[in-house]
Amino acid sequence: MGAPAFVAGDWGTSHLRLNLCDEQGRVLETRDGPGINAAGGNIPATFFLLVRGWDEAHGALPAVLCGMAGSTIGWRETPYLPCPVLPEAIAIQALRFEAQGRTIAIAPGLSCINRLGGPDVMRGEETQILGALGLEPQLREGRHLLCLPGTHTKWVLLDDGAVEQFLTGVSGELYDVLRRHSILVRDAAEADDGPAFQKALEQTRLHPDADLIHLLFATRSRQLSGELKREDAASYLSGLVIGRDIAGALRLFGPEPPGHVILIGTPSLTRLYEAALQAHGVATTAVDGARASLAGLTELHEALRKADFGHAA
Amino acid sequence: MGAPAFVAGDWGTSHLRLNLCDEQGRVLETRDGPGINAAGGNIPATFFLLVRGWDEAHGALPAVLCGMAGSTIGWRETPYLPCPVLPEAIAIQALRFEAQGRTIAIAPGLSCINRLGGPDVMRGEETQILGALGLEPQLREGRHLLCLPGTHTKWVLLDDGAVEQFLTGVSGELYDVLRRHSILVRDAAEADDGPAFQKALEQTRLHPDADLIHLLFATRSRQLSGELKREDAASYLSGLVIGRDIAGALRLFGPEPPGHVILIGTPSLTRLYEAALQAHGVATTAVDGARASLAGLTELHEALRKADFGHAA
Repeated sequence: MGAPAFVAGDWGTSHLRLNLCDEQGRVLETRDGPGINAAGGNIPATFFLLVRGWDEAHGALPAVLCGMAGSTIGWRETPYLPCPVLPEAIAIQALRFEAQGRTIAIAPGLSCINRLGGPDVMRGEETQILGALGLEPQLREGRHLLCLPGTHTKWVLLDDGAVEQFLTGVSGELYDVLRRHSILVRDAAEADDGPAFQKALEQTRLHPDADLIHLLFATRSRQLSGELKREDAASYLSGLVIGRDIAGALRLFGPEPPGHVILIGTPSLTRLYEAALQAHGVATTAVDGARASLAGLTELHEALRKADFGHAA
Repeated sequence: MGAPAFVAGDWGTSHLRLNLCDEQGRVLETRDGPGINAAGGNIPATFFLLVRGWDEAHGALPAVLCGMAGSTIGWRETPYLPCPVLPEAIAIQALRFEAQGRTIAIAPGLSCINRLGGPDVMRGEETQILGALGLEPQLREGRHLLCLPGTHTKWVLLDDGAVEQFLTGVSGELYDVLRRHSILVRDAAEADDGPAFQKALEQTRLHPDADLIHLLFATRSRQLSGELKREDAASYLSGLVIGRDIAGALRLFGPEPPGHVILIGTPSLTRLYEAALQAHGVATTAVDGARASLAGLTELHEALRKADFGHAA
């Protein structure tokens, strides 16, 4: 490990992770904090409180942030770069400013007109994609379909390393609000990829023309009929949502369904998508989301540092 | 108006309406009370408290109830009658018992294996369908597609007056949980059938192969892009949900989309479905849901009274 060189932060809606890194992006220490929603009006104070110990030990190192830190409810608003765009461009368009004697850079997001003709946006995933391109260099050539599952799952079409376009599925949020607030699930058990999940996946495959609206009620009616245990309802719901997310996306990114999808996300979630994609006959490669994010932030830090040297020269 | 003869009650999940009726089902007085969820363990007490004034004035008249009163969390559990079934059969299978010197009858629900091969159930709508058959006698001949929009919208195939099968869309609940708990809508305004609703309907028609999961995010992204006003987001969301409910149901009840749909529900909701069905080129006839429910309960009361006379003779 080298000496502490910079702070890398992925600041999402519901979670903040700050890593103290050496120049190569190896993590020396980690601090977790509240997401942008919980931090509310107190974004800078939240940040400075979390890094205080590091500052006292190592001085005010530069910080590189991505995610909702750049949103209208974040620290400072950064633009959306329109697609098609090379992920490397986020370094050029990063917003840089000084705060309490420290340089802070916030990555911009990406925007596009998606497959359904609507505006679409991402914040944070562009940095994960940049990182994934570093971790899996073969992604820089040819066409690839990426899936970044989460609250708002992003399906991303890469063409020779450029983000050509993407599409958001609100799968994570839909699962979450239905699980917590609907009559479909009345049990605290978490979803897993067991038989109930597989059964629901099968339903989405058997009925490709059925909308999620008409598949969902079975989560309850199968409990009433005794086919589904109360504690398996969350897994069944998860299978329906993920199954429809995948079936719909594969269809929209057709005409030929892609034979391979690169999954970037938390292992517990990519595992569910992996199982569902395999059931569709689609092979997968999983990249850890936190690792991709860190790799992207490190590349961003590196690019900004080089630009500074160039500027100074 | 005749003398008070019976109490007709539609006891749903979130609302109870009791009507004091004469022998012909004309309403003399009305009391509103809590739904089964709010009444909790106190179902009989809630009922007796609401009818106390009527009992003092007219004696303990027989009561006829439908809806969640017959569910596992209701007053007493009634069975589900399997389809195909004539709605008149709910009179034969009604659960009757004595409580505090009064005869109480609770209508059974209906069950079927739906178009997607899953178990499906209804409670309360069967009584509305029975009532609608009385109000619109032409429904007793030929095939008709009925739509009863609500928390759990029921699409019902009638064949010569019998309920052949039905399908539940969780449209109302989906709209409600997303409106109240997701980041898609951040405004208290209610949905209407204005331009935002129409725009969303158009999206569901333009992209018949897109799942709701991939259409929903535009509710937020169109606000970010300035295309959609914050206060119109609920209407846009409503248009997406109703549009997909209709497109999916018309497809499932194909091959030929039916040219006419009978809507049974509250006028504010049937109006939205009417607008959406017309956009699909489908004509509609609307029947007021409360009126249908009362007509069904009246027919149930009448059938039970006749059965008693027969029994007594």
